[in-house]
Amino acid sequence: MSYTAPLAEICFVLDELCGYADIVLLPGLGDADRDLVASVLEEAGKFASTVLAPLNRVGDKQGATWSAGGVTTPPGWVAAYKSFTQSGWNSPSASAETGGMGLPYVVNAAIQEIFQSANMAFALCPMLTQGAIEAIDKYAAPELRAIYLDKLVSGEWTGAMDLTEPQAGSDLAAVRTTAMPDGDAFRLKGQKIFITYGEHDMADNIVHLVLARLPDAPAGVKGISLFLVPKLLVETDGSLGARNDVSCVSIEHKLGIHGSPTCTMVYGDGPGALGFLIGEANRGLEYMFTMMNAARLSVGLQGVGIAERAYQQALAFARERKQGRATGASGSSAIIEHADVARMLGLMRGKTEAARAICYQAAAALDLATRSEDAEERARQQRRVDLLIPIAKGWSTEIAVEVASLGIQVHGGMGFIEETGAAQHLRDARITTIYEGTTGIQALDLVGRKIARDKGQAVRELVEDMRNSASAGGRPVMGMTTQAAYLIEEAARWLLDEGAKNIALPSAAAVNTLHLFGICIGAWRAAEASHAAIDTAFAETKAAMAAFYADQIFPEARARLDGIVGSSAVLNLRPDLFN
Amino acid sequence: MSYTAPLAEICFVLDELCGYADIVLLPGLGDADRDLVASVLEEAGKFASTVLAPLNRVGDKQGATWSAGGVTTPPGWVAAYKSFTQSGWNSPSASAETGGMGLPYVVNAAIQEIFQSANMAFALCPMLTQGAIEAIDKYAAPELRAIYLDKLVSGEWTGAMDLTEPQAGSDLAAVRTTAMPDGDAFRLKGQKIFITYGEHDMADNIVHLVLARLPDAPAGVKGISLFLVPKLLVETDGSLGARNDVSCVSIEHKLGIHGSPTCTMVYGDGPGALGFLIGEANRGLEYMFTMMNAARLSVGLQGVGIAERAYQQALAFARERKQGRATGASGSSAIIEHADVARMLGLMRGKTEAARAICYQAAAALDLATRSEDAEERARQQRRVDLLIPIAKGWSTEIAVEVASLGIQVHGGMGFIEETGAAQHLRDARITTIYEGTTGIQALDLVGRKIARDKGQAVRELVEDMRNSASAGGRPVMGMTTQAAYLIEEAARWLLDEGAKNIALPSAAAVNTLHLFGICIGAWRAAEASHAAIDTAFAETKAAMAAFYADQIFPEARARLDGIVGSSAVLNLRPDLFN
Repeated sequence: MSYTAPLAEICFVLDELCGYADIVLLPGLGDADRDLVASVLEEAGKFASTVLAPLNRVGDKQGATWSAGGVTTPPGWVAAYKSFTQSGWNSPSASAETGGMGLPYVVNAAIQEIFQSANMAFALCPMLTQGAIEAIDKYAAPELRAIYLDKLVSGEWTGAMDLTEPQAGSDLAAVRTTAMPDGDAFRLKGQKIFITYGEHDMADNIVHLVLARLPDAPAGVKGISLFLVPKLLVETDGSLGARNDVSCVSIEHKLGIHGSPTCTMVYGDGPGALGFLIGEANRGLEYMFTMMNAARLSVGLQGVGIAERAYQQALAFARERKQGRATGASGSSAIIEHADVARMLGLMRGKTEAARAICYQAAAALDLATRSEDAEERARQQRRVDLLIPIAKGWSTEIAVEVASLGIQVHGGMGFIEETGAAQHLRDARITTIYEGTTGIQALDLVGRKIARDKGQAVRELVEDMRNSASAGGRPVMGMTTQAAYLIEEAARWLLDEGAKNIALPSAAAVNTLHLFGICIGAWRAAEASHAAIDTAFAETKAAMAAFYADQIFPEARARLDGIVGSSAVLNLRPDLFN
Repeated sequence: MSYTAPLAEICFVLDELCGYADIVLLPGLGDADRDLVASVLEEAGKFASTVLAPLNRVGDKQGATWSAGGVTTPPGWVAAYKSFTQSGWNSPSASAETGGMGLPYVVNAAIQEIFQSANMAFALCPMLTQGAIEAIDKYAAPELRAIYLDKLVSGEWTGAMDLTEPQAGSDLAAVRTTAMPDGDAFRLKGQKIFITYGEHDMADNIVHLVLARLPDAPAGVKGISLFLVPKLLVETDGSLGARNDVSCVSIEHKLGIHGSPTCTMVYGDGPGALGFLIGEANRGLEYMFTMMNAARLSVGLQGVGIAERAYQQALAFARERKQGRATGASGSSAIIEHADVARMLGLMRGKTEAARAICYQAAAALDLATRSEDAEERARQQRRVDLLIPIAKGWSTEIAVEVASLGIQVHGGMGFIEETGAAQHLRDARITTIYEGTTGIQALDLVGRKIARDKGQAVRELVEDMRNSASAGGRPVMGMTTQAAYLIEEAARWLLDEGAKNIALPSAAAVNTLHLFGICIGAWRAAEASHAAIDTAFAETKAAMAAFYADQIFPEARARLDGIVGSSAVLNLRPDLFN
């Protein structure tokens, strides 16, 4: 159950698939040259292997525990968190002024993958802090920023996103928590569920970003505001004061990520939890969604991380375990010699590489969208980010579940035994298609906001890039890129045409569309990788993987298009027919 | 987490898809008329809902526990087992002479599905006893039969299959347990792992069927014999005597089926465990494989059972949970109104129905193969059984994992919380693609023994039946059957042609072939069901489900054929390329 960061692969993706040479030229990123990045990633890999990965199993086995006094994280986690923050890993992409490393988003993506791979339940905590930093940095008043930002960037305090309520899951319009004005501040009352790291013992304070309604707020999504609610109140000198009226009343018993406490939070058992409005009233959901873009990419990277981890473990087992005799072999063979085991490892690796390429590409586009000096380019890259985020989140997590399940299968009977560790990856991965918006929600975002709203412009730009790449290629496998571009074009055309006639059809086609985009962009990246690789041994692997992708993974894309075109069969399954 | 046996659906499959009217005419089955079958199934459903299903969660939560004194099953299980055997549920298809119900295999399949649905970890125990009954009934000498058979049929004693050793999993040729002659009997020494219900407290005695080697046995598969090793020795008067030299030294901590103890068994801590040879020496593997056909079908039915249970739970949740507003709705909608939830439920139902139809059809073919008065028909039906078994086992369990995972997804965040119960179905289902031969092993059996060995005869007969069914149809959806027959034919043709040139290719194509057969036979059954349904409401559902199958499930079959044809890409992924 050891973990080694796949640094050669990660650097290859940064350089050859994400054009890192261009990104480092962007204003403000000059310090992040390739040598620095290589050494940062190497250090991240070391920290992941030596500190985080060894705590993954104890986190799963003992889990976080609740008592009236608070939540205790698994043995070793408090020390690991201290070491994590002291090494500066809490905020790789936060600006240097706020105490971060100021690294590009795409490098941050690589670092996130590495930590999520090593210990997803642990890495969730800084992931949520990053979201809180972003929201406060972007939207909070200077007084709040002055008090909270540095401590969150350093990791002395952690952040939590308090959105969900029992009746308000995917549908945040149903939020009922209330906030009553009290001087310059507010008093919150209500209950939130599924709050990741809502309470724990790794940091001195916890900064909750809470969705709630003001007394005069309009109904629905336009009446929700965002509040900052600290666990411990902060005195004017910055020291920690009294306990706020917010508490964790229980934590969930979950399928996976046992080390990460999932809290039910109660505000206002007494006078109400003291909260501070972030930005303007009634714009909370808008702020949350901005943050959520980053959070969704992070969850996509969790998918990549878990898939990579499951692959590494299955590969090691397949090399070691001897069983039966492979075709043409004499004597007992390592199971990797058996064709079907190689097929499973190929599926695991091919899908993981595709998901990584998609997630990193979204992060690279975010760097360009944020920092390019050309306004048109910024807008174009932002469209690319917006298009890729639901795919990065939705598809990477769907394949993570599949890859982790294949990892169990490679292990045979041993895979079902918890001590082996393969089963934990499936249990951990299983949340990623659900939180921060289910796959269905990502898919609606893709077909609605990202394809229909701009009448397919972002998709046309993507297809254009794919076609340019295909014509610059030349190897036989580049034909896959041409086909992939065609399938994406066909799917988008169908969605726009049929959606115009029947508004319900795209929602029935949404998840098939998300899968089609994931497979097809992954196909493009696999083909491009086989074209870009120059070192002989590496190039041979990339060529074999691209051919494998073409024959064993890519065929699903056409089936997905058939599913899209046949979406009326979904609408015809009326609720009353499920009898 | 309640369970209701889907009796209308089960009876529809028996009557319309399995031709029960013909089966009841077979010699020896005259008593099992439709009225009797309906009432037996109704009683089985009642027992499942009221006794077994309520113990499913406690079994998962508390699990079986080990101590030096033995293995304790979860609270309530001992009483439930007593009630189970006293109600006569232990051996529905064992002959009336031995104390069974003498029901057709196809009815037994339905009963098994029901019990596995309600509580898979519990139902595993009688499932293994059925295997032991079959082996002893077929191969053991009259003295052994006289002592052991009645007690196993009644369920007073249970059976266990002791095959696996640490170095011998999929490859049973590597078995090392030894058996030394000792008078008329033998003394066994060795260790077996992963022995389901190898030790427990629900019955007075446990009858182990153990694979071991005689001192003079040839190496490999042809030197393995089958022994009967009782936990407690049986005196000549049939009473229980001293403890045999076999013991359970530990049980596994597993991903799922926590209620079912998975034992490490040690034979011969002292003088050696007293064992009795079953049948002839060195033919143990052959006997085991005969038994295993039944066991594999049973595991396929576990897949159907878990898939059905997961579907029922997801459907109930989707009807109750309100969230968001569906397209065209006013106010909050039950999530079943959202197109993507309906799509997920359709996938769950469509695949479950297809797997059920395949498993039941294999059982019906077994009835015909066993009892038909026409020798040619018996041989033809046996070929059908042999062809269907690896598909029934492999595909039903693969879809069970997928369906259980979709069940979690339908529940959203609640699906990840253990109390909900949806996660248990995924954890339980996850073993079914592994034990009794992994999906990869089933697939090798399919392409090797079942397609190549008879040069495609069994496949041709299947395709002929499908074409006859398609031409008798007439509804538009019957076109799906024609396409399905074509895809099966193409796959078999490719396997026979290319396998003749390169013996390794079929092994690389095997799992894609298994999926293709599962999807295509399921397509045929879905089309046939929509043709056979006559009652208006039921017929409308079946028509909608067949159309859904055609557009949302069947497209994968063509992708699988592409994967088969592209199998050289698998062989080109040499082990050294995974670097």
